[in-house]
Amino acid sequence: MDKLYVGQENVTEWVFAEREVRLFAEITGDQNPVHLDSEYAAKGKFGKTIVHGILLAGLISKVIGMELPGKGSIYLEQDLQFKKPVFVGEKVTAKVKITDIHKNKIFTLETNIYDKDSYCVINGTAKVLYEK
Amino acid sequence: MDKLYVGQENVTEWVFAEREVRLFAEITGDQNPVHLDSEYAAKGKFGKTIVHGILLAGLISKVIGMELPGKGSIYLEQDLQFKKPVFVGEKVTAKVKITDIHKNKIFTLETNIYDKDSYCVINGTAKVLYEK
Repeated sequence: MDKLYVGQENVTEWVFAEREVRLFAEITGDQNPVHLDSEYAAKGKFGKTIVHGILLAGLISKVIGMELPGKGSIYLEQDLQFKKPVFVGEKVTAKVKITDIHKNKIFTLETNIYDKDSYCVINGTAKVLYEK
Repeated sequence: MDKLYVGQENVTEWVFAEREVRLFAEITGDQNPVHLDSEYAAKGKFGKTIVHGILLAGLISKVIGMELPGKGSIYLEQDLQFKKPVFVGEKVTAKVKITDIHKNKIFTLETNIYDKDSYCVINGTAKVLYEK
Protein backbone atom coordinates (compact mmCIF):
# COMPACT_ATOMS: atom_id res chain seq x y z
CA MET A 1 0.00 0.00 0.00
CA ASP A 2 1.20 3.50 -0.76
CA LYS A 3 2.28 5.55 2.19
CA LEU A 4 -0.32 7.91 3.60
CA TYR A 5 0.69 11.56 3.94
CA VAL A 6 -0.49 14.83 5.46
CA GLY A 7 -2.50 16.73 2.85
CA GLN A 8 -3.74 13.56 1.13
CA GLU A 9 -7.41 13.93 0.20
CA ASN A 10 -10.28 11.73 -0.92
CA VAL A 11 -13.36 13.06 -2.69
CA THR A 12 -16.46 10.84 -2.79
CA GLU A 13 -19.94 11.54 -4.15
CA TRP A 14 -23.08 9.91 -2.80
CA VAL A 15 -26.86 10.25 -2.88
CA PHE A 16 -29.12 9.53 0.08
CA ALA A 17 -32.46 8.95 -1.58
CA GLU A 18 -35.80 8.06 -0.01
CA ARG A 19 -34.87 4.38 0.35
CA GLU A 20 -31.68 5.15 2.32
CA VAL A 21 -33.47 7.66 4.55
CA ARG A 22 -36.32 5.22 5.30
CA LEU A 23 -33.89 2.39 6.09
CA PHE A 24 -31.85 4.64 8.38
CA ALA A 25 -35.06 5.65 10.17
CA GLU A 26 -35.91 1.98 10.60
CA ILE A 27 -32.53 0.75 11.88
CA THR A 28 -32.07 3.65 14.33
CA GLY A 29 -35.71 4.33 15.18
CA ASP A 30 -35.31 8.00 14.21
CA GLN A 31 -38.70 8.62 12.58
CA ASN A 32 -38.51 12.40 13.01
CA PRO A 33 -41.07 13.63 10.43
CA VAL A 34 -38.67 16.28 9.10
CA HIS A 35 -36.96 13.34 7.33
CA LEU A 36 -39.93 11.18 6.36
CA ASP A 37 -43.18 13.12 6.07
CA SER A 38 -43.50 15.36 3.00
CA GLU A 39 -46.67 17.05 4.26
CA TYR A 40 -45.10 17.84 7.64
CA ALA A 41 -41.94 19.08 5.90
CA ALA A 42 -43.93 21.26 3.49
CA LYS A 43 -45.19 23.28 6.48
CA GLY A 44 -41.74 23.52 8.07
CA LYS A 45 -38.84 25.92 7.57
CA PHE A 46 -37.17 23.94 4.75
CA GLY A 47 -40.26 23.00 2.71
CA LYS A 48 -39.08 19.48 1.88
CA THR A 49 -37.86 16.38 3.69
CA ILE A 50 -34.18 16.47 4.65
CA VAL A 51 -31.59 13.71 5.14
CA HIS A 52 -30.75 12.81 8.77
CA GLY A 53 -27.53 14.64 9.69
CA ILE A 54 -26.06 11.48 11.17
CA LEU A 55 -26.84 9.54 7.99
CA LEU A 56 -24.85 12.16 6.05
CA ALA A 57 -22.03 11.60 8.54
CA GLY A 58 -22.20 7.95 7.47
CA LEU A 59 -20.60 9.05 4.20
CA ILE A 60 -17.61 10.36 6.18
CA SER A 61 -17.50 7.00 7.96
CA LYS A 62 -17.50 5.25 4.57
CA VAL A 63 -14.59 7.31 3.27
CA ILE A 64 -12.59 6.75 6.47
CA GLY A 65 -13.38 3.03 6.64
CA MET A 66 -12.90 2.29 2.96
CA GLU A 67 -10.55 4.88 1.45
CA LEU A 68 -8.64 7.23 3.75
CA PRO A 69 -7.00 5.90 5.89
CA GLY A 70 -8.94 2.77 4.75
CA LYS A 71 -10.12 -0.67 5.82
CA GLY A 72 -9.49 -1.46 9.47
CA SER A 73 -9.81 2.18 10.58
CA ILE A 74 -11.27 2.63 14.06
CA TYR A 75 -13.04 5.88 14.95
CA LEU A 76 -11.74 7.77 18.00
CA GLU A 77 -13.50 11.11 17.57
CA GLN A 78 -15.82 12.89 15.17
CA ASP A 79 -17.26 16.36 15.47
CA LEU A 80 -19.91 17.66 13.14
CA GLN A 81 -21.34 21.10 12.51
CA PHE A 82 -24.49 20.99 10.42
CA LYS A 83 -24.46 24.21 8.39
CA LYS A 84 -27.34 23.63 6.00
CA PRO A 85 -29.91 20.87 5.44
CA VAL A 86 -29.60 18.42 2.53
CA PHE A 87 -32.82 17.43 0.78
CA VAL A 88 -33.62 13.77 0.28
CA GLY A 89 -32.24 12.63 -3.09
CA GLU A 90 -29.75 15.49 -3.47
CA LYS A 91 -26.17 14.60 -4.47
CA VAL A 92 -23.49 15.33 -1.86
CA THR A 93 -19.70 15.20 -1.97
CA ALA A 94 -17.51 14.26 0.99
CA LYS A 95 -13.97 15.65 1.10
CA VAL A 96 -11.75 13.99 3.67
CA LYS A 97 -8.18 15.22 4.10
CA ILE A 98 -5.35 14.04 6.39
CA THR A 99 -4.22 16.99 8.54
CA ASP A 100 -1.93 15.12 10.98
CA ILE A 101 -0.38 11.68 11.45
CA HIS A 102 0.78 10.85 14.99
CA LYS A 103 3.22 7.98 15.58
CA ASN A 104 2.19 6.54 12.23
CA LYS A 105 -1.19 5.36 13.59
CA ILE A 106 -3.38 8.20 14.91
CA PHE A 107 -4.77 10.20 12.00
CA THR A 108 -6.47 13.58 12.28
CA LEU A 109 -8.75 14.38 9.36
CA GLU A 110 -10.72 17.30 8.03
CA THR A 111 -14.15 15.87 7.15
CA ASN A 112 -16.46 18.12 5.17
CA ILE A 113 -19.55 17.47 3.09
CA TYR A 114 -20.67 19.75 0.24
CA ASP A 115 -23.97 20.01 -1.60
CA LYS A 116 -24.46 20.16 -5.38
CA ASP A 117 -23.71 23.90 -5.33
CA SER A 118 -20.37 23.27 -3.51
CA TYR A 119 -21.78 24.78 -0.32
CA CYS A 120 -20.31 23.20 2.83
CA VAL A 121 -23.27 21.50 4.54
CA ILE A 122 -21.26 19.65 7.20
CA ASN A 123 -18.02 20.94 8.62
CA GLY A 124 -16.13 18.50 10.81
CA THR A 125 -12.95 16.87 12.00
CA ALA A 126 -12.18 13.28 12.94
CA LYS A 127 -9.53 11.32 14.80
CA VAL A 128 -8.98 7.74 13.71
CA LEU A 129 -6.75 4.81 14.70
CA TYR A 130 -5.26 3.05 11.69
CA GLU A 131 -2.43 0.56 12.11
CA LYS A 132 -0.92 -1.21 9.15
CA MET B 1 -46.74 19.47 25.54
CA ASP B 2 -44.98 19.75 28.87
CA LYS B 3 -42.34 22.41 29.16
CA LEU B 4 -38.77 21.25 28.55
CA TYR B 5 -36.25 22.10 31.28
CA VAL B 6 -32.52 22.02 31.96
CA GLY B 7 -31.62 18.72 33.61
CA GLN B 8 -34.40 16.80 31.85
CA GLU B 9 -33.15 13.40 30.71
CA ASN B 10 -34.23 10.62 28.39
CA VAL B 11 -32.91 7.06 28.65
CA THR B 12 -33.40 4.76 25.64
CA GLU B 13 -32.16 1.21 25.05
CA TRP B 14 -31.43 -0.20 21.60
CA VAL B 15 -29.70 -3.13 19.92
CA PHE B 16 -27.80 -2.86 16.64
CA ALA B 17 -27.76 -6.46 15.45
CA GLU B 18 -26.27 -7.89 12.28
CA ARG B 19 -29.24 -6.79 10.16
CA GLU B 20 -28.93 -3.13 11.22
CA VAL B 21 -25.15 -3.14 10.70
CA ARG B 22 -25.47 -4.69 7.22
CA LEU B 23 -28.18 -2.22 6.19
CA PHE B 24 -26.11 0.73 7.45
CA ALA B 25 -23.13 -0.57 5.47
CA GLU B 26 -25.33 -0.76 2.40
CA ILE B 27 -26.96 2.67 2.62
CA THR B 28 -23.69 4.50 3.39
CA GLY B 29 -21.27 2.27 1.49
CA ASP B 30 -19.16 1.77 4.64
CA GLN B 31 -18.19 -1.89 4.18
CA ASN B 32 -15.16 -1.64 6.52
CA PRO B 33 -14.55 -5.31 7.43
CA VAL B 34 -14.21 -4.49 11.16
CA HIS B 35 -18.04 -4.22 11.08
CA LEU B 36 -18.97 -7.01 8.66
CA ASP B 37 -16.35 -9.73 8.41
CA SER B 38 -16.12 -12.10 11.41
CA GLU B 39 -12.91 -13.73 10.18
CA TYR B 40 -11.20 -10.37 9.65
CA ALA B 41 -12.43 -9.18 13.05
CA ALA B 42 -11.23 -12.36 14.77
CA LYS B 43 -7.65 -11.46 13.82
CA GLY B 44 -8.03 -7.81 14.88
CA LYS B 45 -7.65 -6.06 18.22
CA PHE B 46 -11.27 -6.55 19.34
CA GLY B 47 -11.79 -10.17 18.24
CA LYS B 48 -15.37 -9.66 17.03
CA THR B 49 -17.25 -7.42 14.62
CA ILE B 50 -18.18 -4.01 16.03
CA VAL B 51 -21.04 -1.61 15.31
CA HIS B 52 -20.17 1.44 13.15
CA GLY B 53 -19.62 4.38 15.50
CA ILE B 54 -21.82 6.62 13.37
CA LEU B 55 -24.62 4.03 13.47
CA LEU B 56 -24.44 4.14 17.28
CA ALA B 57 -24.71 7.92 17.00
CA GLY B 58 -27.95 7.26 15.12
CA LEU B 59 -29.46 6.29 18.48
CA ILE B 60 -28.64 9.78 19.78
CA SER B 61 -30.31 11.18 16.65
CA LYS B 62 -33.37 9.05 17.38
CA VAL B 63 -33.66 10.30 20.97
CA ILE B 64 -33.22 13.92 19.87
CA GLY B 65 -35.63 13.61 16.93
CA MET B 66 -38.30 11.60 18.74
CA GLU B 67 -38.08 12.27 22.46
CA LEU B 68 -35.87 15.11 23.71
CA PRO B 69 -36.41 17.81 22.53
CA GLY B 70 -38.60 15.75 20.11
CA LYS B 71 -40.17 15.73 16.65
CA GLY B 72 -39.14 18.62 14.44
CA SER B 73 -35.68 18.93 16.04
CA ILE B 74 -32.94 20.09 13.66
CA TYR B 75 -29.32 19.18 14.37
CA LEU B 76 -26.84 22.06 14.59
CA GLU B 77 -23.83 20.30 16.11
CA GLN B 78 -22.78 16.87 17.40
CA ASP B 79 -19.44 15.85 18.76
CA LEU B 80 -18.60 12.25 19.52
CA GLN B 81 -15.76 10.59 21.39
CA PHE B 82 -15.66 6.86 20.82
CA LYS B 83 -14.28 5.40 24.06
CA LYS B 84 -14.80 1.70 23.52
CA PRO B 85 -16.16 -0.49 20.69
CA VAL B 86 -19.63 -2.03 20.86
CA PHE B 87 -19.99 -5.56 19.52
CA VAL B 88 -22.70 -6.32 16.99
CA GLY B 89 -25.84 -7.44 18.83
CA GLU B 90 -24.88 -5.93 22.19
CA LYS B 91 -27.52 -3.83 23.99
CA VAL B 92 -26.69 -0.15 24.42
CA THR B 93 -28.36 2.66 26.36
CA ALA B 94 -28.42 6.29 25.26
CA LYS B 95 -28.74 8.96 27.93
CA VAL B 96 -29.56 12.41 26.59
CA LYS B 97 -29.83 15.33 28.99
CA ILE B 98 -30.67 19.00 28.42
CA THR B 99 -27.80 21.14 29.74
CA ASP B 100 -28.86 24.54 28.36
CA ILE B 101 -31.84 26.18 26.67
CA HIS B 102 -31.11 29.41 24.77
CA LYS B 103 -33.95 31.77 23.84
CA ASN B 104 -36.36 28.86 24.20
CA LYS B 105 -35.18 27.25 20.94
CA ILE B 106 -31.47 26.34 20.92
CA PHE B 107 -30.92 23.29 23.11
CA THR B 108 -27.54 22.04 24.29
CA LEU B 109 -27.53 18.37 25.24
CA GLU B 110 -25.21 15.87 26.87
CA THR B 111 -25.38 12.78 24.64
CA ASN B 112 -23.77 9.63 26.01
CA ILE B 113 -24.10 5.96 25.14
CA TYR B 114 -23.40 3.15 27.61
CA ASP B 115 -22.82 -0.56 27.10
CA LYS B 116 -24.48 -3.39 29.03
CA ASP B 117 -21.93 -2.96 31.85
CA SER B 118 -22.80 0.77 32.15
CA TYR B 119 -19.44 1.72 30.64
CA CYS B 120 -19.61 4.96 28.64
CA VAL B 121 -18.80 3.93 25.05
CA ILE B 122 -19.64 7.26 23.41
CA ASN B 123 -19.23 10.58 25.14
CA GLY B 124 -20.69 13.55 23.32
CA THR B 125 -22.58 16.81 23.23
CA ALA B 126 -25.11 18.17 20.76
CA LYS B 127 -26.70 21.47 19.85
CA VAL B 128 -30.20 21.35 18.39
CA LEU B 129 -32.79 23.82 17.09
CA TYR B 130 -36.25 23.07 18.37
CA GLU B 131 -39.07 25.58 17.97
CA LYS B 132 -42.58 24.86 19.23
